Amino acid sequence: MISEQAKKAIDFSRNNIKPSQNEPLTPEVVRVARANADIGNQYKIPDDVKVKKVNKEFVKGEFYLIQNAQNKNNVIMFLHGGAYATGTVFSRRKLAISLGKSSKADVFSVDYRQYPEGKHPDAQIDVYNAYIYLKDKYDKILLFGESAGATLALTLTIQLRNEHKNLPEKISVFSPIISQLNIFPSEYYRNERDPMLIGATAPVPYFDNPEKKDPLISPIYDDFHDFPPILINCGSEEVKYDNSAILNFLCQKAGVDVQWHVWQDLFHVFVLFDCPETKLAIKQIGDFFNSHVK
Amino acid sequence: MISEQAKKAIDFSRNNIKPSQNEPLTPEVVRVARANADIGNQYKIPDDVKVKKVNKEFVKGEFYLIQNAQNKNNVIMFLHGGAYATGTVFSRRKLAISLGKSSKADVFSVDYRQYPEGKHPDAQIDVYNAYIYLKDKYDKILLFGESAGATLALTLTIQLRNEHKNLPEKISVFSPIISQLNIFPSEYYRNERDPMLIGATAPVPYFDNPEKKDPLISPIYDDFHDFPPILINCGSEEVKYDNSAILNFLCQKAGVDVQWHVWQDLFHVFVLFDCPETKLAIKQIGDFFNSHVK
Repeated sequence: MISEQAKKAIDFSRNNIKPSQNEPLTPEVVRVARANADIGNQYKIPDDVKVKKVNKEFVKGEFYLIQNAQNKNNVIMFLHGGAYATGTVFSRRKLAISLGKSSKADVFSVDYRQYPEGKHPDAQIDVYNAYIYLKDKYDKILLFGESAGATLALTLTIQLRNEHKNLPEKISVFSPIISQLNIFPSEYYRNERDPMLIGATAPVPYFDNPEKKDPLISPIYDDFHDFPPILINCGSEEVKYDNSAILNFLCQKAGVDVQWHVWQDLFHVFVLFDCPETKLAIKQIGDFFNSHVK
Repeated sequence: MISEQAKKAIDFSRNNIKPSQNEPLTPEVVRVARANADIGNQYKIPDDVKVKKVNKEFVKGEFYLIQNAQNKNNVIMFLHGGAYATGTVFSRRKLAISLGKSSKADVFSVDYRQYPEGKHPDAQIDVYNAYIYLKDKYDKILLFGESAGATLALTLTIQLRNEHKNLPEKISVFSPIISQLNIFPSEYYRNERDPMLIGATAPVPYFDNPEKKDPLISPIYDDFHDFPPILINCGSEEVKYDNSAILNFLCQKAGVDVQWHVWQDLFHVFVLFDCPETKLAIKQIGDFFNSHVK
């Protein structure tokens, strides 16, 4: 049983977001999608939060400094989604700040390069540089990513682990994607059920070789050994559902401290919408980020 | 509830066939696997069946001419499996002849090129030429393929349809594979349950570009429009299970006359083993081949 607000979000997605995916992601479509995301997600910054923009050569993004944040040594590194193309930092401000508040920690939302301005591995380079930048200022990095941002959270951690660097303290992924080839069964079975995404579409244009068996493109090709604790959230109706299922499986197999939370009857990154389920999910992610590692 | 014979087949597979897949498919491993397949599948040709070998420049294989076959205008075109490498015509004689008897039709088992002697598209070319050869002698082609042979049954039909040629009358695929990338969820979930195949392995060496979005490599990229009636059989325990599930889905979506039969607790091409379930499956495929098209 989902909330009335969630039902409205489903209607909105089905009538507005999903139909837009019938067009290929041309630069013009991307431009319009970003503008619409920003217009549709106006948000008044709370009085107890300070926005600090960062626009360095190697690092771009926004800090959300939470007044009275108790965990001053921690920062949430926030990675928005949007198919490596249509996402914006601005449109995710509410989610990022809500996560900061529930986690009692500052947040840095990374403005990484996407298509068409960037192509793989530009986003990977940008989040890697942002991680180094944050690691210089904070003890513990709590990594959050949604959709394509979740992919980047995983590929960043894979790269750091392979280079024997310090890893994020914890990872929370929402509606993760672990393969750039949209051929999992859920892409077919859930196509009618999913209110937000069309299943079994062409790979995103950000990758020239989406089929490459490279864990930094499709994390399904990693074995997730030595990963930090990870919390996976997804909706039961997603065409991307199998991505979460396999990620959970691979983490379990590797002995990772993994939790997988399926939200019955909900959809891809529903956490971007106002509804009681979103409030609960944000509270749970905060609890996860705040809890001590076993 | 499966038969005692099927349980023994499961034990045999688990102890003998599956462990052999820990080695990569080198030419030497292929040679040994083919020899073992032939040794393990000795079969006395029944008195009412005549074997006629064909060894032409463009077509190689064996006819099994069934005495008293009532459907003299029909021929079963039989495509063995074996990962485009380890299969042999000889080791499938019993299955091919049993299908001929249950279908009351002659059989031609195609000896197509596999790795390492051949690489893609050699097998495709060989089955295409065999189809033309058979079409010259018979009215109706009943196409059967198991495992990689099922892939070839599908890719052959896709090519014929795209070239506006006459299609096979019906298709029966057993434990089909429709993607050369072994990343469907069942490859992970069913790995321990599957007694015969290891899941999530590297692609077969026959394809230089297994990731290519080409329906003649991975039929998942076809939409199966205008396909003839098709009967899909698979075991519930297969790591290849999702291949059947998606094939059935895509055929349903295309309005194809499709039937999907899942054999509870059974495994990849169990029909190669002696058990009551095999007898029943062969009878059902014969009934399907013999029934009139709606």
